[in-house]
Amino acid sequence: MSNLLTQAIARESVSRRPLWIMRQAGRYLPEYRKLRTRYSFKELSRNPELATTVTLQPIERFPLDAAIIFADIMSPIPALGVDFEFNPGPEIAEPIRTLAAVKALHDPDPEEVAPEVIAALKLTQKELPKETALLGFCGAPWTLAAYLVEGRGKNGFPKLRALARTEPKILHLLLERLSKLMARYLIRQAEAGADAVQIFDSWAGLLSRSDWEQLVRPHLEAMLDTVGKSNVRRILFLQNAPHLVEAYATLPTDVLAVDWRENLPNLQAKYGDRIAFQGNIDPAILIGGAEPTRTATLELLRQVKATGHIVNLGHGILPDTPIESVQALVEVVHDES
Amino acid sequence: MSNLLTQAIARESVSRRPLWIMRQAGRYLPEYRKLRTRYSFKELSRNPELATTVTLQPIERFPLDAAIIFADIMSPIPALGVDFEFNPGPEIAEPIRTLAAVKALHDPDPEEVAPEVIAALKLTQKELPKETALLGFCGAPWTLAAYLVEGRGKNGFPKLRALARTEPKILHLLLERLSKLMARYLIRQAEAGADAVQIFDSWAGLLSRSDWEQLVRPHLEAMLDTVGKSNVRRILFLQNAPHLVEAYATLPTDVLAVDWRENLPNLQAKYGDRIAFQGNIDPAILIGGAEPTRTATLELLRQVKATGHIVNLGHGILPDTPIESVQALVEVVHDES
Repeated sequence: MSNLLTQAIARESVSRRPLWIMRQAGRYLPEYRKLRTRYSFKELSRNPELATTVTLQPIERFPLDAAIIFADIMSPIPALGVDFEFNPGPEIAEPIRTLAAVKALHDPDPEEVAPEVIAALKLTQKELPKETALLGFCGAPWTLAAYLVEGRGKNGFPKLRALARTEPKILHLLLERLSKLMARYLIRQAEAGADAVQIFDSWAGLLSRSDWEQLVRPHLEAMLDTVGKSNVRRILFLQNAPHLVEAYATLPTDVLAVDWRENLPNLQAKYGDRIAFQGNIDPAILIGGAEPTRTATLELLRQVKATGHIVNLGHGILPDTPIESVQALVEVVHDES
Repeated sequence: MSNLLTQAIARESVSRRPLWIMRQAGRYLPEYRKLRTRYSFKELSRNPELATTVTLQPIERFPLDAAIIFADIMSPIPALGVDFEFNPGPEIAEPIRTLAAVKALHDPDPEEVAPEVIAALKLTQKELPKETALLGFCGAPWTLAAYLVEGRGKNGFPKLRALARTEPKILHLLLERLSKLMARYLIRQAEAGADAVQIFDSWAGLLSRSDWEQLVRPHLEAMLDTVGKSNVRRILFLQNAPHLVEAYATLPTDVLAVDWRENLPNLQAKYGDRIAFQGNIDPAILIGGAEPTRTATLELLRQVKATGHIVNLGHGILPDTPIESVQALVEVVHDES
C-alpha cells in the first residue's frame, strides 16, 4: 500500500516528509497512563485487543504517519522456552551462557512466535486510517542476545562482552538462531499487515568495529537479506554506536535510523543515493517544551533533504515529555508541505 | 622525576611499556574487600591514611608502574557547597539546573578543595617505590556537570541534554566554574607529588559533535591549557564517545586514553607524532580468565607501537575479575622487555 512512509522508504518524492515517534504509544500519553492503572505492561502487550487500543492512542491524538504495533522486543522470546519477567526491564530467569543452554532453546513453529503480536497487527490494520502506515518491529539478534546472555539490562553488558571474547562459538550459534527466528517473525508481521518493519539494535555499540565485523555482522546481514528477499521494507535502528554507523549504512536495509549523536546531512550526502534515513531529534529537547522542539525540528528540516527522510526522534520519547512538545513537532513537519 | 610512565608520556624510548589499571585499587582485590567490611567507601576516600593504604594495595601485590590516588571524581565537589551521597553512585541533594543555583556555588580557596586527597598524595609519595609513578586525577567539567545537573548517574542523562539545548548559558557558566576549579585542583595535586594527572571524561559521548564543539570543548580546552602551562602532564580519558575521539586527539593533552571500542593502531598512526596513547584492553576479557587476557594483551602489544604507549584497560577493572587475569596481564607486559 502506498502512503507517505512507504514513499519515503522508496526515496520517492513526497508531498511532505512522514513523521512517527519511537515509543509514541507510551507513558507520556495521559490515556496510556490511565490504562496502565488497570493493566500491567505485560497484560497490555499480551492481549491483542488491548495492544491495538494502545497502538491507536497516539494516532487518535496526533496526525502521525505511522502506527507501530504495541509490543516488546522480548515478545518472541517465550517461544524459545526462555523464562523472564519485566522489572521494569527484562530479567532472564536462567541466562544463556553455555552451548548446552543455546542447544536447549526451543525451535518453535512460526505460529508459536508471539501470536498476540500477529493478532494485534491484524486488528490494528482494520481500524487504522488508510493513509497511516502500520509498522512491525523486532530486536536485532545482538540486542536480544545481550539480554539473554547478561540476564538483564546492565551498563556495558560485561558478561556478554566476556563471552564474545572467550566463547565466540556459543554466541555465533545463539545469534544464528535469533537471526533466523527474527527473519521469520518479521515476514509474518508483514503478512499480517505491516507496511514496514523496524529492527532495533539498541545495544549495537558494545564491541569494537573489528569484533563486530567478525561476530555480529554476518548474522544481522543474513536476517536483513532474508527479510528483503520477501520484499518486506526494512528500517534498521542503531543506538549509541557512532563507530559502527558507516558499517550499518552498507548493510542490506532500506532505511537507516540513527540517534541524535549522528550527523544526518553527512550520512545522507554519502549514502542517500542508496538508502533512506530516519531521525534524529534528541528526545531530551522535547522535555524543554514546545519552543526548543520547534527550533530543533526546523533546523532538522533545513539541514536534511526531504527525499528519503522519515522524521523521528533519535531515541524513544521520554515519559515526562509535555504533550505540547509533540504538538509542536507535528505542526512544524506539517507546515513544511 | 623520570620513570617508565613519564618517559612514555614524553614519547621517549622505554625499556618496556608502562602498565597501570584503571580502578586498580578496588573491589577485585581481596585486601580491599576486607577493608570495606570495616569502612565505607566514603570513610576510605576521606581519610588520608586509609586512602594511602588503599592506593598502595595493588602496588604491593603487582609490579605496576603507577599508583593512582584513591579518591572519587566527586571529591572536590563538597568545596562548592553541594551536598551528595553515594548510593552507590553519587546522588545530589539539590541538582544544579538554574542560573541562581550555579551562582550560589561557593568559590573555595585552593586549600579547601579536597584537602584529604592532597594529604593522601603527600603520604603516598613518601611510601611509594622510587620507580613507581604517582597519578592524580579529576573528573572532566562535562562529566562532573552531568552528575550535578542530572542529580545522579541516569542512562543518557536526559535532563542534562535538555538543559544543554534550552539553557546553554547556565551550562556554560557551570562548565566554566568547574573548568577553573579542576585546573587549580590538578595543579595542586602535582605540587603534592603527582607525576601526572588523568582527567576522566566518562560521559563525554552524550552530545553530537557540533553541540559538543559549541558547549563543551572551550571549557575542557581551557582547563587542559591551564594545567599544561604549569607543566603538569595530562592524560585525557574519554569513554563511549567514538564520534568525538578525533576531536579529543587534537585537544591540548599529552596522552589520550581510549576505551576498547577504539582502534588504537589507527589513532597512533594519525596522531602518534604529537601525543601518546593509553589503553585499551576490554576489561570484560579479564572476566574470562588468564588465557583470554594473555591473548588480548599479546595482540595489543603486537598492534600498537611501544613508543608513546601506556598499557591499560579500556575502562575500569570489573569487581569480579579474577586475580589470575591481572597476573597474566602483568606478565605479558613484563615479558616484552
